[in-house]
Formats: sequence, C-alpha cells, structure tokens
Amino acid sequence: MSGVLYGVGLGPGDPDLMSVRADRLVRGARHVAFFRKAGRAGQARGIVEGMLREDAVEFPMEYPVTTEIPLTDPRYNAWLSGFYADCCAHIRALIEAGEDVVVLCEGDPFFYGSFMHIYGRLHGVVPVEVVPAITGMSAAWTATGLPVTWGDDRLTVLMGTLPEDALVMAMSSADAVVVMKLGRNLEKVASALRKAGKHDRAWLVEYASMSGQRVRRLSEADGVEAPYFSIIVVHGQGRRP
Amino acid sequence: MSGVLYGVGLGPGDPDLMSVRADRLVRGARHVAFFRKAGRAGQARGIVEGMLREDAVEFPMEYPVTTEIPLTDPRYNAWLSGFYADCCAHIRALIEAGEDVVVLCEGDPFFYGSFMHIYGRLHGVVPVEVVPAITGMSAAWTATGLPVTWGDDRLTVLMGTLPEDALVMAMSSADAVVVMKLGRNLEKVASALRKAGKHDRAWLVEYASMSGQRVRRLSEADGVEAPYFSIIVVHGQGRRP
Repeated sequence: MSGVLYGVGLGPGDPDLMSVRADRLVRGARHVAFFRKAGRAGQARGIVEGMLREDAVEFPMEYPVTTEIPLTDPRYNAWLSGFYADCCAHIRALIEAGEDVVVLCEGDPFFYGSFMHIYGRLHGVVPVEVVPAITGMSAAWTATGLPVTWGDDRLTVLMGTLPEDALVMAMSSADAVVVMKLGRNLEKVASALRKAGKHDRAWLVEYASMSGQRVRRLSEADGVEAPYFSIIVVHGQGRRP
Repeated sequence: MSGVLYGVGLGPGDPDLMSVRADRLVRGARHVAFFRKAGRAGQARGIVEGMLREDAVEFPMEYPVTTEIPLTDPRYNAWLSGFYADCCAHIRALIEAGEDVVVLCEGDPFFYGSFMHIYGRLHGVVPVEVVPAITGMSAAWTATGLPVTWGDDRLTVLMGTLPEDALVMAMSSADAVVVMKLGRNLEKVASALRKAGKHDRAWLVEYASMSGQRVRRLSEADGVEAPYFSIIVVHGQGRRP
C-alpha cells in the first residue's frame, strides 16, 4: 500500500492563484516537504501559510549551498547530488510506508523547478503526480498590464545566468522576451537587451502577484542588482486586428 | 457606479486546474461572455459547464471568420475589427450600467489570447482586472512526464503558422521548444524540427489535461494534420546535479 508523491505547483505567490487541485492537496496534506535556503522560512512554505492541517508534518529541505560557490566549482554538483539523494531517501521511506507526500513547488514544477531533481530520482520508483501551475512569468506580464504575445510572436525565455553573447543572440531573434534569475546578472542582462535593441521596451517586475509587487520600465531601474523574485518582460508587437 | 471587466484565465481545460480566484469569479458571475466558433458550444464555455449561476446571462461572441479565408486577405482584419468593436460595445454598456462582466478565456489571457482584443479596446475605458492562468503548454509538458527546462535552458515558444525557415532558425537556437497552432501546419513544423535536429526529441500532446488527452512522440504521429488543441514539446537537456 504505497503512498503517492505529489509535486504541487503553487503558482507565482498569491495563494488565490493556486489551482483548485493544488489548494485541495495542500489543505489535506499530512506530510509536506519544501526547499528553502538555510535560515529562511522558505518561499514555497510562505505561500501556504495558514493553509496546512494542524497535524501536518513538515519536512524542510535546506540547500547546502546556493550562490556561495560558483556553478563551475566541482563541489557544487557533488554537494547538491548528495543533498537531493538524502531528501529523496526520506520522502521515499514515507511513501513506501503508505504516506502521501506533498512537495510544495514555487511556480510550475516542470518549468525550471527544484522539484525536477526529486522527480528525476523517484519517478518510476514510487507513484508520482505532478500538478502544473501558473508560472511567475504569467504573473509578471499580467502585472505589466500588457499582453505579452500577439499573433505569430516568438517568445523566448532566458536565464540571466547565461553569457552575454548568448543572451544577445537569443534576444535578437525573438519578438517577446522573458528573463529570469536576474539578481547580480541585471547589468549584464540590461546590456544584452541594449545590444539586441529591446532595452527601451523592457519592463522589470519584482515580486509579481506578491505583496511588494513593483512594476517599472527597466530604464527606470537604478541599481545593478535585482531581487531574486524579479522578472524582465519585453512584450511582442505582433499583428492584431 | 461602474462594474468591472474581468478577463479570467481558465487554464488548459481541466476545471480542477482553474485558479481559486477564477473558480470564485466564474461561480459568482451574473454576466459571462466567451468567444466561440459559430455553431459550436465553445471551448471556454465547455470548461465551466455546471459551474455557472442559474441566473447567469451568457453572451457568446461568435467569430465571423476563423480559418475560412487567409490572414493576408484584407477582409480578415476588417471583419474581425468590426466584430471586436461590436462585442466591446455590448460589454461596455453592461459595465457602465453597473454590472460586472466575466470574460472566459482559454489558457492565460495575456498569452496569445483572444481576450487581448477586448482588453486593448476597453482598457482605460472601464475598470479591468486580468486573472492569469495555467497555460496549455504547462499542461502539455506536464503530460509528457518530463520537465521542460533545466538550468540555463533557453525555451522558445513558436506558432505553427510561421514560415518554415523562421521556424528552423528559432528552433535551432533554442534548447527547449514549444509549438502551438499546429492544425494544418503539422507537416511543415515536423520538417522544420528535422532541419533543426530536434525532431526525434519532439512530443505531440493532444488535448492536454482534457478528456481525450493523448501523448506521443512526434515520430509516432501518422497524419499530416493535428487537432486544434495540440502542442509540440521538445524538452531541454540542461545541467542537473
């Protein structure tokens, strides 16, 4: 009598934007797991504040490392692999004991999500169900008050961690652009947008759908660093009757 | 005492994947508007079957033309412009009379949505609120059982209506690819994927999250036409610890 592993997308941050299915699974869950940075409450956990059962058992999975060492450091992969393996061993034991486990996922689980590292290790081992969700980028373009794509517009989604020349090339051949993982990459991304001729159409959205939401043209952003939950949106200009 | 125009994203088709906010707005709505092809029940209307108030007033907006004439025909824009203007006049009159109007939108309203044509005409004229939603592509990649993007993967979203050379170019410079509006363009899209070296990694998802959902490798699809609600997904292969 195995339990089920649920990868539940919570959406962009506003609990009202969770799906009906996610809302039901979260409220009914006995075992709830979520990633967080050590010493923090955790973004995913924050979204469901006040929604969990009183007897819910929480399993916070604390990253051993986030941005302290570069991705290229060989220890990075080793540390994270060991970490994911430990998390999966714990979750697997619960599921094999007949318990369901809900993993809380920011955004959509299969779209640049941390849950994929659990899924890749437990898929085929225990029963898994994934609940898609509203992405952070949907909340971001909705916050700008402008549709992101029209007609045949090509939309490209990029990570700010890419090298600048790769960003420029991808931005140049797209009509609409979304850039995530900005943080310390904001200046590089802004420079790439300038070279691709899209800087003056770019918007910077911070904390989309969350308290503290802020929407500005990128040209009005002053600093060289963006908060973790910020997304750049360049809207397409496709045909419209 | 003006009403409010709500552009409510319903998500990919499964009512359980509507957001909590959308669910509440749909169930409470007195005036409900939706696009449909003449003679059909309408996809958006179908998603909310059984959810509307008994006294809900429905306003079906029937396209005067869909694929009967090419987009390049000058009458296409004229007919659609007149159609959208008529729809907006009706909705505006209701809102100015103090009624709220919920426009049912398949997928996410600002992501290639028909609602944008209403929004563009009534934004700034009456109060408007847009509720983002789970996209059809999120449901499609979830249905494949494989995460769509990892690490720094570049995701590009394309419409099958683009010329083949534009498709090849955009597919070649992306890691993960989504193609929508397939229909009669399936053969052209498949050819473009071959030229971009991505055909053997492509999946064809029909009716994602709906009854009749079908997931196949594109290489196993036989016909030269895809149903309207079908999406091609090519997964990224980015780094993962």
